[in-house]
Amino acid sequence: MISFTCDYSEGAHPKILERLTATNFEQLPGYGTDHYCESAKAKIRAACGTPEAEVFFLVGGTQTNSTIIAAMLADYEGVVSAETGHIGVHEAGAVEYTGHKVLTIPSHHGKVDPKELRDYLEAATTDPNYEHMVFPGMVYISFPTEYGTIYSKAELEEIHGIAAHHGLPLMIDGARLGYGLASPACDLTLPELASLCEVFYIGGTKVGCLCGEAVVFPRGNAPKHFYTITKQHGAMLAKGRVLGIQFDTLFTDNLYFEISRHAINMAMQLKELLRQKDCTFFIDSPTNQQFIVLENKKIEELGKHVAYDPWDRVDADHTAIRLATSWATQPEQLEELKRWI
Amino acid sequence: MISFTCDYSEGAHPKILERLTATNFEQLPGYGTDHYCESAKAKIRAACGTPEAEVFFLVGGTQTNSTIIAAMLADYEGVVSAETGHIGVHEAGAVEYTGHKVLTIPSHHGKVDPKELRDYLEAATTDPNYEHMVFPGMVYISFPTEYGTIYSKAELEEIHGIAAHHGLPLMIDGARLGYGLASPACDLTLPELASLCEVFYIGGTKVGCLCGEAVVFPRGNAPKHFYTITKQHGAMLAKGRVLGIQFDTLFTDNLYFEISRHAINMAMQLKELLRQKDCTFFIDSPTNQQFIVLENKKIEELGKHVAYDPWDRVDADHTAIRLATSWATQPEQLEELKRWI
Amino acid sequence: MISFTCDYSEGAHPKILERLTATNFEQLPGYGTDHYCESAKAKIRAACGTPEAEVFFLVGGTQTNSTIIAAMLADYEGVVSAETGHIGVHEAGAVEYTGHKVLTIPSHHGKVDPKELRDYLEAATTDPNYEHMVFPGMVYISFPTEYGTIYSKAELEEIHGIAAHHGLPLMIDGARLGYGLASPACDLTLPELASLCEVFYIGGTKVGCLCGEAVVFPRGNAPKHFYTITKQHGAMLAKGRVLGIQFDTLFTDNLYFEISRHAINMAMQLKELLRQKDCTFFIDSPTNQQFIVLENKKIEELGKHVAYDPWDRVDADHTAIRLATSWATQPEQLEELKRWI
Amino acid sequence: MISFTCDYSEGAHPKILERLTATNFEQLPGYGTDHYCESAKAKIRAACGTPEAEVFFLVGGTQTNSTIIAAMLADYEGVVSAETGHIGVHEAGAVEYTGHKVLTIPSHHGKVDPKELRDYLEAATTDPNYEHMVFPGMVYISFPTEYGTIYSKAELEEIHGIAAHHGLPLMIDGARLGYGLASPACDLTLPELASLCEVFYIGGTKVGCLCGEAVVFPRGNAPKHFYTITKQHGAMLAKGRVLGIQFDTLFTDNLYFEISRHAINMAMQLKELLRQKDCTFFIDSPTNQQFIVLENKKIEELGKHVAYDPWDRVDADHTAIRLATSWATQPEQLEELKRWI
Repeated sequence: MISFTCDYSEGAHPKILERLTATNFEQLPGYGTDHYCESAKAKIRAACGTPEAEVFFLVGGTQTNSTIIAAMLADYEGVVSAETGHIGVHEAGAVEYTGHKVLTIPSHHGKVDPKELRDYLEAATTDPNYEHMVFPGMVYISFPTEYGTIYSKAELEEIHGIAAHHGLPLMIDGARLGYGLASPACDLTLPELASLCEVFYIGGTKVGCLCGEAVVFPRGNAPKHFYTITKQHGAMLAKGRVLGIQFDTLFTDNLYFEISRHAINMAMQLKELLRQKDCTFFIDSPTNQQFIVLENKKIEELGKHVAYDPWDRVDADHTAIRLATSWATQPEQLEELKRWI
Repeated sequence: MISFTCDYSEGAHPKILERLTATNFEQLPGYGTDHYCESAKAKIRAACGTPEAEVFFLVGGTQTNSTIIAAMLADYEGVVSAETGHIGVHEAGAVEYTGHKVLTIPSHHGKVDPKELRDYLEAATTDPNYEHMVFPGMVYISFPTEYGTIYSKAELEEIHGIAAHHGLPLMIDGARLGYGLASPACDLTLPELASLCEVFYIGGTKVGCLCGEAVVFPRGNAPKHFYTITKQHGAMLAKGRVLGIQFDTLFTDNLYFEISRHAINMAMQLKELLRQKDCTFFIDSPTNQQFIVLENKKIEELGKHVAYDPWDRVDADHTAIRLATSWATQPEQLEELKRWI
Repeated sequence: MISFTCDYSEGAHPKILERLTATNFEQLPGYGTDHYCESAKAKIRAACGTPEAEVFFLVGGTQTNSTIIAAMLADYEGVVSAETGHIGVHEAGAVEYTGHKVLTIPSHHGKVDPKELRDYLEAATTDPNYEHMVFPGMVYISFPTEYGTIYSKAELEEIHGIAAHHGLPLMIDGARLGYGLASPACDLTLPELASLCEVFYIGGTKVGCLCGEAVVFPRGNAPKHFYTITKQHGAMLAKGRVLGIQFDTLFTDNLYFEISRHAINMAMQLKELLRQKDCTFFIDSPTNQQFIVLENKKIEELGKHVAYDPWDRVDADHTAIRLATSWATQPEQLEELKRWI
Repeated sequence: MISFTCDYSEGAHPKILERLTATNFEQLPGYGTDHYCESAKAKIRAACGTPEAEVFFLVGGTQTNSTIIAAMLADYEGVVSAETGHIGVHEAGAVEYTGHKVLTIPSHHGKVDPKELRDYLEAATTDPNYEHMVFPGMVYISFPTEYGTIYSKAELEEIHGIAAHHGLPLMIDGARLGYGLASPACDLTLPELASLCEVFYIGGTKVGCLCGEAVVFPRGNAPKHFYTITKQHGAMLAKGRVLGIQFDTLFTDNLYFEISRHAINMAMQLKELLRQKDCTFFIDSPTNQQFIVLENKKIEELGKHVAYDPWDRVDADHTAIRLATSWATQPEQLEELKRWI
C-alpha cells in the first residue's frame, strides 16, 4: 500500500546513505567537533548568506524547539505562538517542561496575523498587572506552517519588525523549510529569511535526512554556551558525524533545494490531480502538505489502498485528511493514488 | 593518525548501514510504531529472557539517563550514584535540569560499594531531618563503569537487594553493556542482569550503532506513559525506523555479542601489549577501556602518532590516559600502537 | 482616601493579632509541628465534616496553587482551567515553572461550563495524536471565581462527576472560599464542597489572616510526602505557629464564617447602593467582588476619593471597575462611597 | 520545659506585634508596594551604606535561597557551596527543583576554604570536558554558617576576590546575619559585608520577625524583573505590609542590631556556663549556636528538662547537641539550664 501520510515515511536520500557508508571507518572526534560538521556549517553559512552565523546540529524537531526556546527565554518569559503551533499542541508539553508558557494568539490556517500579534504584544506589555503575568519573550512561527501555508516576504518583515519593536527575537521553525522555500508561492530566499529572524532551523528529518535539524543563529547571536545547553537537553549526538555528514551532503550541489523542489513538483501535481477529481480543499496549501475534505465512507474506501493522515473532523459525515509528498515521492505513486481517489 | 580515544570514533557496523540502505524506500509509520521496531523489541526481549519486558528506543546516553531518571522519580526524590557516575559529572546537569538531585556516595574505581550504599540509605532514611531532605528515590550504577570496571553477580545481587529493601528501583546505565558482558571477568549473563534491576539500557552508540540506546523495563514495569515522556524530553525519533533497524540488526545472529567480544579481544591484546611495555596501569580494567600512567613527555611524543584520551593528572610529571578499543578496532591498529608506545 | 480595591487592604482580624500577641513567648517547635497547628487542623476537619482529611498550612495563593498542582500531576500531565483562571493569567507562569501546561477551556464569567469540560476531555482523550499531547491530569476551578461568581451544588456535582469519569482529581481554589459560602446565592455547605473535590483550600489571606491558606485533602488523599513537597517549593513556614494560630482562631466560634457573612452583607449593601445609583453592572456577582461599568471621566472623578481596581476596557469611553468588600469593610466606608459615586 | 532547640521558637519581637496592631486597619496597596515597604527599604539601604541597593522582601529562607539562585544562574550553571551548605542539605532539593546543581566543596566547620574554592574554580574552568559539565555560576556562603562560625573580613575579601576573578557573583545567606555581625569575633560591619558580595539577605525569621527575609542587591544589581520572579516562585506576599512593617520596625532605632547583640550576650554566657561545667565543645562557635558533646545517657537526662537539637552522632556513646540562644532568650532560662546540665 502506498502512503501519503507524511513526509518522513522513507529513510534518507541515497546520497546521504552513500556518504555515511563511504566515510564509515574514518576515525573522527565526537560531539560535533569533526571536520564534516565544520564543512556542513560552512556550506550552510554560505547558503544563508550569513558569514557570521553560528550553526548547531540537533537531532529532532521537538527537541530542537524546546532547546532553542529554553535557551532564549528568561525564566519569567513565555513564547508567543499561533494556537496551532506545533510547540503548543503536538510536542507533549516539551516547552512547559522546561518551565515556560506558550502564549497563544489566533491561528489563520496556521499563520499568525501581524496585526493580532501587534495588538497582543501591546496589550501584554501595558496591562496594569503585567508584572504578575508571563512576559512575552520571543515570537515563534513555523515556515511552512503545520497547515502547509507560508508567509510572504512582506508579512515576515512585518512580523519581524513587530517583534523587534518589543525587543523580542523571532524564531522560525523550519522543520519543512525546504518545502516552503521551493513553493511557487514563495517570494523569499533563504538569505532573506535568515535576515528576518534571530534563529531558525533547517529541517533535515522531513527533507532527506535520517534525522537532524540545523539550527542557525544568523548573526552569531547564539545564546551563551548553547553547545552545553544542547548537551544538557540530551540533544547532542556523540557521533556528531552522523549529522555533519548528512547536512554536508544536503548542502553540496544544492541537493537540499533540488529535493525540496521535487517534493513541491509532486505536490503541485497532486493538487492538480485532486482538483481534477473535484475534491474540496480544506486549505489552499502551496507546499507539500495538501488537505482535502472527503465523505467518511469515501475515506474508508481510500484507506484500503492509500495511507493518509486523518486531520480534522468537519461534520458528522465529512473529515479533512492530509496527503503529503516529500523528497521521496515518485510519479508512479501519484498514478497509483489517482486510481483510488 | 590512529585513534584509541574512545569507542565512538567510527560510524556503524557495516551490516547496519547495509540494512538501512536495503530498507530505505520502504514506507513506514513514524515514532517507533514500525515493524522493525517491533521486531527489534521482540529480539531484545528474547535475548534478555524477559518476555514481558517493555522496550523503548531512545537516541543518546545523556538523554536516556535523564529521561529514565525523571520518569522514575517523584518530585521530592533524587538518584543515588557513585560520585564518578556519568550522570553527576559529564552530562551538563541534565538530571538536575529535570528537577532532581544526584545524591553521591564514594566511588571505587567507578563502582559503588554495597556496604557504603547500605549505610547511606540507612542514614538517609533515619535522619531526624529526613523530611527536609531529598529522598533517595532510585539507585544508579553503570555497567561497565566509567572506569571500565564491572560488578560481579554477587555484588549486583547485593546492591539490588539493598535497593529493594528500601523500595528503590535499581537502574543500570548500559552505554557500554556489551563490553561488560563480553569481558572474561564477567560472571553475569544478560538475562541475569535483566533480572537484577528495574531498568537498564543496551547501549548502541558505543557498540556498533550510529546512535541509539534500547531501554528495557524487564518486567513490564515501565513508568506510565513512558512513550509520551520520551516525546516530552525530545527523545523520540520521528523516523523510529532508524533505531528499530539498527537494533534489529544488532540482535540478529548475536551480532551485538559478537562485536562486543571482538572489542574485548582487542582490549585484552592491548592490555598485554601495555604490560609487555612495562606500562603502569592506573586501574586494572577488564573491559574495553584501558588506563595507564605515563610521563608527560612520553605522552607528548605518543600524541604525535596516536590519539588518546587524557584522563587524570597523577602528579606534576605524570598523567593517566585512556586507550579504548571498540567493535571497530583492527589488529593492525594495535600493531601501529605498539610502534609508538 | 477609602479603598474598595481589593479584599487584602487591611491587616488581620483583631482576634488574630490578639492571639498572636498572647502566645508570643510560648516556645514552640517549628515547621508546623506545634500544637496550634494540630488544633487548627482538628477544627478544620470538624468544620469540613471530613475526619480523615489531611490539612497543610501554606503561605500564599500562587504558592499554594503551584505546589498542589505540581504535586498532583504526573510530568506528562497538565491542569484544565477556565481561560480566566488565576493560575493561567496572574501568577507569572508559576505552574509552567514547575513543568506543567495550563490547558484552557472557555470562561463564562469565570466559570467552567460542564458540557464544554466534558467535550474537551472527550476530545483530548480520543485524539489520534493524544500520546504526543499533554494529558489532562486534573481540573482546576475557583470558588468563588475571579469574577465573583459561584457554582451551584448541581454544577459542582456535574463537574466533579465529569472529572471523576476521566479519573481526574478536581481542585478548588478557595482563596475567597468564605465569601462564596456566605453568599445568599450559595446552595452549598463546606462539608458538601469538601465531598465534591479531591483538594481545596480555605483562603486566609483574603479572609481575615495576615497570610496563609489551609490546604485540605478531604479523604486523607494527600500526595505522598506532601509535607516535603511544600518544603521543596519554599512554601513551609519555619514559624508554623503563625499559620496555626491564625487558622485556629478563624475556626474557633465560627469566626471564619461570621466575618465572611459580614463581608457579604457589606457587598449586598454595596450592590444595592450601586443599583440605586443606576450603575451598569458588568457581571451579576453574588459575592464580595462587584463589577460596574462607568464612563471614564466619572471614573477619574471617583478616583480622587475612592480607590478601586480597574478591571477591563469596555469601549473607548467606558471601563469596568471592581469594588470589593471584605471582613474589614465598615458601614461608614459604604456611606463615604455613596457620596462619591 | 525550656527550649534551646533553635532561634525560631518564639513569635516576634513585641515591638513588631505592636506595630502590626497599630497599623492594622490602615488600607494599603498589596504586593510590597505600600509605604511601609518603601520606608523599610530606605532604612535598610541606609544601614547597609548602599544608597543604590535594590531590596526585596521574601517570606522564608529556603524560598529566598532558591529564588535568588534560580534568578542569578543561567540554565547551564550551578551554585558552588560548602558540602554542609543549607541549600545542599536541608532544603529538600529546592535548588535542584529549579533545575540547578549544587556544586560542593569541602566544609570546614561550615566554612569554605578560600584556597580550596580557588582550586575548585580553576579545575572546573580548565577541565578538558568543561563544556559537558555544569558551569560554576555563583558562590554561596552562609554568614554565620550552619555551624555558627563566621568569616573574617580578610577571608570574605579573599573569597569575593576569587569569585570575581572568575566572573561569579557571591551570595551570602544571612538567615542569621544579625547574630554573625554582633559576635565579638566579627571584624566586619554590615556596610563592609554589603560591599563584599553581589547579593545577601538579612534574615528576619530567626532575628525577631514572624517571618521574612530582606534580600539586598547592594549595587542596584538585581536580576531583571526580580519582582516577577518572586511572584513566579510563590515568594511574594499579597499583604506585603506584613513584611514591610516588620523590617521597618527592625531597622528603626537599631532594633535589629540591639536584639542580635542580646542574643550573642546570652550565647557568650551560655558558652561560659558550659565551660564551667567542663563540657566538651564540638565546635568553637562565636555566635548564637553552641555545640557540645555529651554522653548519651546525660543527654537523655537533660532532655527531661531542656529541649535541645540533636546534631551529630560522635561515637556509640556520645552525641553532639546544639543549644541556641536568640533575641528572645532570657537570663532566667540560662539559670534554669544551669540546673540541669
